Amino acid sequence: MDETISVGLIGAGRIGTSHARLIAERVPGARLAAVADPRPESAEALAAELGARAFTDPLALIADPDIQAVVIAASSEAHADLIVAAARAGKAIFCEKPMSLSLEDADRAVRAAEDAGVILQVGFNRRFDRGFRAAHDAVTSGAIGSVQLMRSVTRDPGLANPAAVPPWTVFLLTLIHDFDTLLWLNPGAEPVEVYATADALVAPDFKDQGLLDTAVVVITFDNGARAVAEASFSAAYGYDVRGEVFGSRGMVTAGDGARSSMRLYTSGGLSQDTARVDVELLHEAYAAEFVEFVSAVREGRAPSVTGVDARRALAVALACIESVKTNRPARVAGVTEVAR
Amino acid sequence: MDETISVGLIGAGRIGTSHARLIAERVPGARLAAVADPRPESAEALAAELGARAFTDPLALIADPDIQAVVIAASSEAHADLIVAAARAGKAIFCEKPMSLSLEDADRAVRAAEDAGVILQVGFNRRFDRGFRAAHDAVTSGAIGSVQLMRSVTRDPGLANPAAVPPWTVFLLTLIHDFDTLLWLNPGAEPVEVYATADALVAPDFKDQGLLDTAVVVITFDNGARAVAEASFSAAYGYDVRGEVFGSRGMVTAGDGARSSMRLYTSGGLSQDTARVDVELLHEAYAAEFVEFVSAVREGRAPSVTGVDARRALAVALACIESVKTNRPARVAGVTEVAR
Amino acid sequence: MDETISVGLIGAGRIGTSHARLIAERVPGARLAAVADPRPESAEALAAELGARAFTDPLALIADPDIQAVVIAASSEAHADLIVAAARAGKAIFCEKPMSLSLEDADRAVRAAEDAGVILQVGFNRRFDRGFRAAHDAVTSGAIGSVQLMRSVTRDPGLANPAAVPPWTVFLLTLIHDFDTLLWLNPGAEPVEVYATADALVAPDFKDQGLLDTAVVVITFDNGARAVAEASFSAAYGYDVRGEVFGSRGMVTAGDGARSSMRLYTSGGLSQDTARVDVELLHEAYAAEFVEFVSAVREGRAPSVTGVDARRALAVALACIESVKTNRPARVAGVTEVAR
Amino acid sequence: MDETISVGLIGAGRIGTSHARLIAERVPGARLAAVADPRPESAEALAAELGARAFTDPLALIADPDIQAVVIAASSEAHADLIVAAARAGKAIFCEKPMSLSLEDADRAVRAAEDAGVILQVGFNRRFDRGFRAAHDAVTSGAIGSVQLMRSVTRDPGLANPAAVPPWTVFLLTLIHDFDTLLWLNPGAEPVEVYATADALVAPDFKDQGLLDTAVVVITFDNGARAVAEASFSAAYGYDVRGEVFGSRGMVTAGDGARSSMRLYTSGGLSQDTARVDVELLHEAYAAEFVEFVSAVREGRAPSVTGVDARRALAVALACIESVKTNRPARVAGVTEVAR
Repeated sequence: MDETISVGLIGAGRIGTSHARLIAERVPGARLAAVADPRPESAEALAAELGARAFTDPLALIADPDIQAVVIAASSEAHADLIVAAARAGKAIFCEKPMSLSLEDADRAVRAAEDAGVILQVGFNRRFDRGFRAAHDAVTSGAIGSVQLMRSVTRDPGLANPAAVPPWTVFLLTLIHDFDTLLWLNPGAEPVEVYATADALVAPDFKDQGLLDTAVVVITFDNGARAVAEASFSAAYGYDVRGEVFGSRGMVTAGDGARSSMRLYTSGGLSQDTARVDVELLHEAYAAEFVEFVSAVREGRAPSVTGVDARRALAVALACIESVKTNRPARVAGVTEVAR
Repeated sequence: MDETISVGLIGAGRIGTSHARLIAERVPGARLAAVADPRPESAEALAAELGARAFTDPLALIADPDIQAVVIAASSEAHADLIVAAARAGKAIFCEKPMSLSLEDADRAVRAAEDAGVILQVGFNRRFDRGFRAAHDAVTSGAIGSVQLMRSVTRDPGLANPAAVPPWTVFLLTLIHDFDTLLWLNPGAEPVEVYATADALVAPDFKDQGLLDTAVVVITFDNGARAVAEASFSAAYGYDVRGEVFGSRGMVTAGDGARSSMRLYTSGGLSQDTARVDVELLHEAYAAEFVEFVSAVREGRAPSVTGVDARRALAVALACIESVKTNRPARVAGVTEVAR
Repeated sequence: MDETISVGLIGAGRIGTSHARLIAERVPGARLAAVADPRPESAEALAAELGARAFTDPLALIADPDIQAVVIAASSEAHADLIVAAARAGKAIFCEKPMSLSLEDADRAVRAAEDAGVILQVGFNRRFDRGFRAAHDAVTSGAIGSVQLMRSVTRDPGLANPAAVPPWTVFLLTLIHDFDTLLWLNPGAEPVEVYATADALVAPDFKDQGLLDTAVVVITFDNGARAVAEASFSAAYGYDVRGEVFGSRGMVTAGDGARSSMRLYTSGGLSQDTARVDVELLHEAYAAEFVEFVSAVREGRAPSVTGVDARRALAVALACIESVKTNRPARVAGVTEVAR
Repeated sequence: MDETISVGLIGAGRIGTSHARLIAERVPGARLAAVADPRPESAEALAAELGARAFTDPLALIADPDIQAVVIAASSEAHADLIVAAARAGKAIFCEKPMSLSLEDADRAVRAAEDAGVILQVGFNRRFDRGFRAAHDAVTSGAIGSVQLMRSVTRDPGLANPAAVPPWTVFLLTLIHDFDTLLWLNPGAEPVEVYATADALVAPDFKDQGLLDTAVVVITFDNGARAVAEASFSAAYGYDVRGEVFGSRGMVTAGDGARSSMRLYTSGGLSQDTARVDVELLHEAYAAEFVEFVSAVREGRAPSVTGVDARRALAVALACIESVKTNRPARVAGVTEVAR
């Protein structure tokens, strides 16, 4: 058996807790060694549950010589600084999406990892879903010919606290998944223009405070393909993630909201349960992205989803914000050009 | 048994021939009495096949006192004039889509039918598909709450002669179906703005001649709903028509390309045949729209799809053309205001 | 246009009324000329609705020189005598299933049609369903290799009057469809043995009166294939007809209870309407079997479903009854040997 | 964190290897401590891969005081003796199906576990599949009313070495899964009679040597329900496991052979990959049954699948063998009466 990798998790919130459990229980070759959270009780509870050490200061966790790899699930604003710190400490880095909220921060993060020669993987988990991966394989194998029309949908299961949603979340945190998916499913092409429109339809009372909970985006690529990305913060039937790629020789679709193979037929007709939360729908994908991360660390190779991928998706998200502000299509340029 | 309605068909092309056979064989209460086509051999062959009289001059067919209802399947440019002539002759009118290519012609047609007090139904057959009708019923029943996000897709099975496609066909003839569908599935709301982007991806060599064979449109409605309409002239797997309406309480989808319930499992996995042409996929819908037309004629009532509906869809299509020309969102206004 | 065939319908009950309307409205080349029913008001109402003449005596309808073809939808016991009478009168014959309730009657009917040189088609409508036909095509094309395991299911939507169900109905009237389907989907093979078990599970209070409303049958064929046929008189979710053929190279399935392509997603999950009655689920198949019948009459050829087919299915049904009586497998022999 | 359970695996064949990896990598609270296999190189290779100790003698593994729980994946004939030995050593026991090949051995195994007060779980993994579990929940919740008709299908993906298949394998090793599933999905009912028919259709040349690779079974329960179980050793399209329960108020189905949500549409129609091997199709179920086992051990409670369940399924399988030998229905009695 190869060396077991000691992983430190930063951020013991909902998604961090899910990550911690997966790393502890589902990822061969990894060991959850530490948990950091500024709220001591959160850090300690999770650490105790999983047999890890607790930190309140993430920088202390990063500095710990026993830790070989860091998983960042802190608040989005803190991501870039933590990446830089972890890179300088020579740790392998997995960062939850979004990697950053500005191109400058993205560049800082990517440069820091490059300069330190450490792995930087970003949490675009959809790439590890079995259906989306099979769709990607179909596209790259040429089964559908040249890409012409695309679609990616994200609908979250609900919006608990509209007042707490930072501005532009729908693009920077939600649709960032779809932008990465669309760029990945149109290999070799670059986005050149976006049109975005957004509104507060789920919680219209919060529109004045800047809430945008519903959005539609059209991306035009340099190979002529047009992609539609669409998001809502509140799907009554659960968590809905789907993709579609149409090309000169056919179409491929991915995503299926059914919770299981069970189908029930009654006097009301046919019914089937739908998945209700992201960690349920994409449970295997979440585990698989950490398996990939630990494999990359152990094999000393680049991961399949990188900081540059995160920068590309972010560039599209930022152009969407510009498009909404101007109510015009906005250009997207230099998505892969990391400033040095 | 009520009176049988004598129907005269104008235009013995592909879709006219299909219409003629349906009227002759599938529509209770109707009788195909006459066929008109400027090509005498086309008119005569179809008339002979179905036991009808042949005309070369559509105005002669319209003038024939034996004819009670006229089905117009001539070229799009001729539609408005034929509607006006038929209305003045007091005939009930079914006109294949698009009813007209300009708002002026739409107004002329609608006014003529109103002034003559005759029925004017337009061939938006998708409204008569069982799946789309059930989706509409779900929306109007409140099952999905208030409408927030919509999608309508049309993909034709191929493009035989790119050089013969008139400019803007993708909006005026193809997506006109989707515009009607989206307006119908968002009852009570009006379109206020569209963004459209289009390209020649199927036959790029014809782009210089003005061909647009692929298009994506975003419609913003006055109730905040955003709708995406999407078209391609060439789907390798056949004819693809689908719709989706997402609302505050759920989602409804319609459209299924499977040719039959047959599923084949072999060493290559699961496979299922897909429908290849529109008259195959929507065969029952085509019959049902004529059943509706003949019922409306016999009952002396307004049909469920009217000339004003056609004007509304046309207004969206024309705004799309403006949006493509300016590469900006275009306003849509007064879609139901027929000029007098 | 070829000659129009004058059709006389015998039996104006539920299925006869449906047949009459289809012949009048959906079958090119046919004309519903007469309706016979011992209940004068039934015959007259249906005849008036469809512009036909009414008879109370079916033999008078058969004797009418204007009638070229007879559709028999009378009670099952009367089928064989009516076939013999119609054959002697030189009429083409369509008989609703079951063609007869005994092999002697089957032989009489088949011989009478043969001796008179008239067409005799039996109403195994499932053969005309698009999905089942595609399954049959897949089997005969060799796509699934040699047949090994089969399944055919019939579940009716309810049992209104258990006291009125004649003995052995589940085999002679219901599963007769499945037996024909299974024999047709295993071409070239003959049934050699059946095991049948049946019970009154829908209406157990009527078991003492001989009701059997639920049954499972295993048929062993001479090519080794085993087929399961299964019936229930009461499916809460509607009318359920499905088939499955598994072979050395794959599997094919047919049958899908969804009423339309519409799918509804709400907080309760995904739901889809199911078809509720046979004439809804198999509407197109009912029309298609009459199109076949009229084509065979006009072309003077044998129909694709014959009296010998009905005899074969009946032989299996009778063996099932023997199996239930003895609680042992029963042999099936000479299914195609019409006694002369 | 609770105590970690030290698990020893007996049998490093295909399924044992899969079990070992799952226990090592996917089961929180468990540790794979030892592997035993009479082939030293197999034991050592697997032990080295997973950081465990290797044994050639399973009794030595059982005797090791460090081992708290034993997973038996040895050959079927050895199961009962190993269970007795492990029980006497006070170990918690997970035994792969079939628990035994005779009722006497079943009784010995069950008694030994009872007398020692240790947990005995049997590997009916289908109960842990998400779809089958949801179906079970639907049945027990009353959603489909009283059970009337059932179906369970197992089709393996191929038959590598027909000469090596022990007699009656199709009932004792393959359909044993379906018998457990059917008994579990018809709670409170007992099987009273079975009819079984079997043949060598996959490898007919081996029929003379006693091969039976295809079988159909009908089980009659004391609540009147009839269940069909069906098996083939060779499905060209992969591994196929499905279930169906029909009751007075509806139907529930489980099982779906699609490998992922990906659907590909090309000029050949729609296609979807199918799962090819059992450990692929039921991967999550295999993990879940060990999670259940370890939870039961840690919580000191009975597992959800017991030795008595295995005895019940075996009693049905043995009755099938009798039915095939006599070509008559065979009685099933006293399935839960463990002889003391």
